[in-house]
Amino acid sequence: MTDTVRVELGPRSYDILIGPGLIARAGGILAGALPGRRIVPVTDEAVARFHLEPLLRGLRDAGVTPQGEPVVLPAGERTKSFAQFENLLEELLGRGIDRSTLLLALGGGVVGDLAGFAAATALRGIDFVQVPTTLLSQVDSSVGGKTGINSRHGKNLVGAFHQPRLVLADTAALDTLPPRELLAGYAEVVKYGLIDDPAFFGWLEDNGRHLIDGDAAARTAAIRASCAAKARIVGADERESAERALLNLGHTFGHALEAAAGYDGTLLHGEAVAIGMVLAFRLSARLGLCAAEDEARVARHLRSVGLPHRLADVPEAMRVPEELLAHMGKDKKTRQGSLTFVLARGIGRSFVAKDVDPEAVLRMLRDGDPA
Amino acid sequence: MTDTVRVELGPRSYDILIGPGLIARAGGILAGALPGRRIVPVTDEAVARFHLEPLLRGLRDAGVTPQGEPVVLPAGERTKSFAQFENLLEELLGRGIDRSTLLLALGGGVVGDLAGFAAATALRGIDFVQVPTTLLSQVDSSVGGKTGINSRHGKNLVGAFHQPRLVLADTAALDTLPPRELLAGYAEVVKYGLIDDPAFFGWLEDNGRHLIDGDAAARTAAIRASCAAKARIVGADERESAERALLNLGHTFGHALEAAAGYDGTLLHGEAVAIGMVLAFRLSARLGLCAAEDEARVARHLRSVGLPHRLADVPEAMRVPEELLAHMGKDKKTRQGSLTFVLARGIGRSFVAKDVDPEAVLRMLRDGDPA
Repeated sequence: MTDTVRVELGPRSYDILIGPGLIARAGGILAGALPGRRIVPVTDEAVARFHLEPLLRGLRDAGVTPQGEPVVLPAGERTKSFAQFENLLEELLGRGIDRSTLLLALGGGVVGDLAGFAAATALRGIDFVQVPTTLLSQVDSSVGGKTGINSRHGKNLVGAFHQPRLVLADTAALDTLPPRELLAGYAEVVKYGLIDDPAFFGWLEDNGRHLIDGDAAARTAAIRASCAAKARIVGADERESAERALLNLGHTFGHALEAAAGYDGTLLHGEAVAIGMVLAFRLSARLGLCAAEDEARVARHLRSVGLPHRLADVPEAMRVPEELLAHMGKDKKTRQGSLTFVLARGIGRSFVAKDVDPEAVLRMLRDGDPA
Repeated sequence: MTDTVRVELGPRSYDILIGPGLIARAGGILAGALPGRRIVPVTDEAVARFHLEPLLRGLRDAGVTPQGEPVVLPAGERTKSFAQFENLLEELLGRGIDRSTLLLALGGGVVGDLAGFAAATALRGIDFVQVPTTLLSQVDSSVGGKTGINSRHGKNLVGAFHQPRLVLADTAALDTLPPRELLAGYAEVVKYGLIDDPAFFGWLEDNGRHLIDGDAAARTAAIRASCAAKARIVGADERESAERALLNLGHTFGHALEAAAGYDGTLLHGEAVAIGMVLAFRLSARLGLCAAEDEARVARHLRSVGLPHRLADVPEAMRVPEELLAHMGKDKKTRQGSLTFVLARGIGRSFVAKDVDPEAVLRMLRDGDPA
């Protein structure tokens, strides 16, 4: 029932285990894979309610003694702050952690990013294990080693690259997710098909619904394919710039929409990415790079599972063309003032385009959704 | 007049330029070595007074435009705090830095460690250049890539490994140092002779005085030898554990003395290390590893330049044997509760000793200095 994806990064290579029930089995797995470690579980209040007890029971049964009580952070994006970073580090250092201590990040992207950044910087780097509990974190933040916190000038602007030693993606944990959050994570799954795997996109058109409805085998298969796709891209280019930029498909538009919403929860990250991917295909079609039918097919699939898939899906105040363009100019991936878009020559044929004419983007945003 | 030491670290290799007048020439050097970068100088109030104008004039003359005003931090160890880390990052991000921005850390270890940590974590890593202005930072923190801040549980417990792109060690800057600080830095120079270079220690016995008194050639030679020694050790082992631990010669005792002093400035880091090196040789002699004359020779040289060199050189309240031992147990280099000492089989023949009997250490501290 458990699948494994190997992320090849030389001395920092690690395995992602995927399947139902991995949280309860984490103790035994860690006792075998990383014996003799003192473990500090870090989680948030929302995740703790469902998953902390099974985890701790599994650790106890495997004879693994946590180093003190689990650290339980407030839930929500605001936890990725300098203040929580300081609190977490002082808490860990106050427990007398040393380089044999292992942080265990149990939760979604917020917990993984903050705990990962704490692991990257405590004693200049200790090991950590990720136990992602959301679909988004299982397919996205569990591969690539990006950790970090938010600045008042933008999200994820402070952080480090720090690879986990092991990732345990428990597909059963997805049952505890609010449906909207599950769907938002699904947008990132779709992204992997659109980047370079048209067969996977086709498979999602047939099976995406089952995955969302709880089919365990479909979940494992989709998470495995997504992690393998990201591992392929990250392995080629650990610190991004070239190939890794493909992972930003839909993200330049998506980040602009999120910024316009003021990161207030109106639009989840994955929802913004869903719309962003359609816009990336729309821009590609308008530039003559792909067929209009490709854009329509992307939008159709997102709509079929219930994801937003057009500009009209966000409030009018959040889609003022000039404002969106200004937000793109502040995207941290910009370099010396020029913009970078991921465009596509078709489904699964995306590429990084530099120096796209901002006027073309503006015209598209002004024209609004096609009839 | 300018010497170069190459630090070989694969793709992260860099040069250390050593000589008088490098601060004023930094603009021209950077324009040649790292063209087209937007530069943010970071310094502290004490260093700014002497060195900021010459630096800025040199940047202007070379046509290098700083990205905004220099960031001037409060001087002193307390600046290596979470609060200043946050302030510096928000300031940098507020200026719209991108991955082509280059931080220029002008100052001693505090500025280098904090600005280096900010560079390591801003946008998950931007480039930085170090312009160390103290002897300690020229021979110690300019090699090895250790950056970081202090926790309330200890110094340098939070940070990252992040190599500079270039180091400019201006030997003329040492003229502006308080003599006591220069001397404290000299203790780390002596350390490199004691670790593995008996000829260098002999050279220091003959020339150390000249270096301290301002001889430019002696300074350049000693800094070059020190940086080369550290580069050799760091190159062999970038993230420490084995060989790199040799750099801690005198530091286990030194850190204990600093901790006992409450880091209040009673004892500078280098002064603590000076006493610590004598104690490391004393312990080695008592364990039958080296001759008592080796300890005497180390102490004699340190005394000849005016450095503290025995327990009696610190106030009685700061050398309570049991307290010092307790502080050693909290050294972050300890692993699973066991202590690590750097001991010596003679001058320039140091090695890492694990599992030294704490009782032997305690007896030595109780016995006090030899007559």
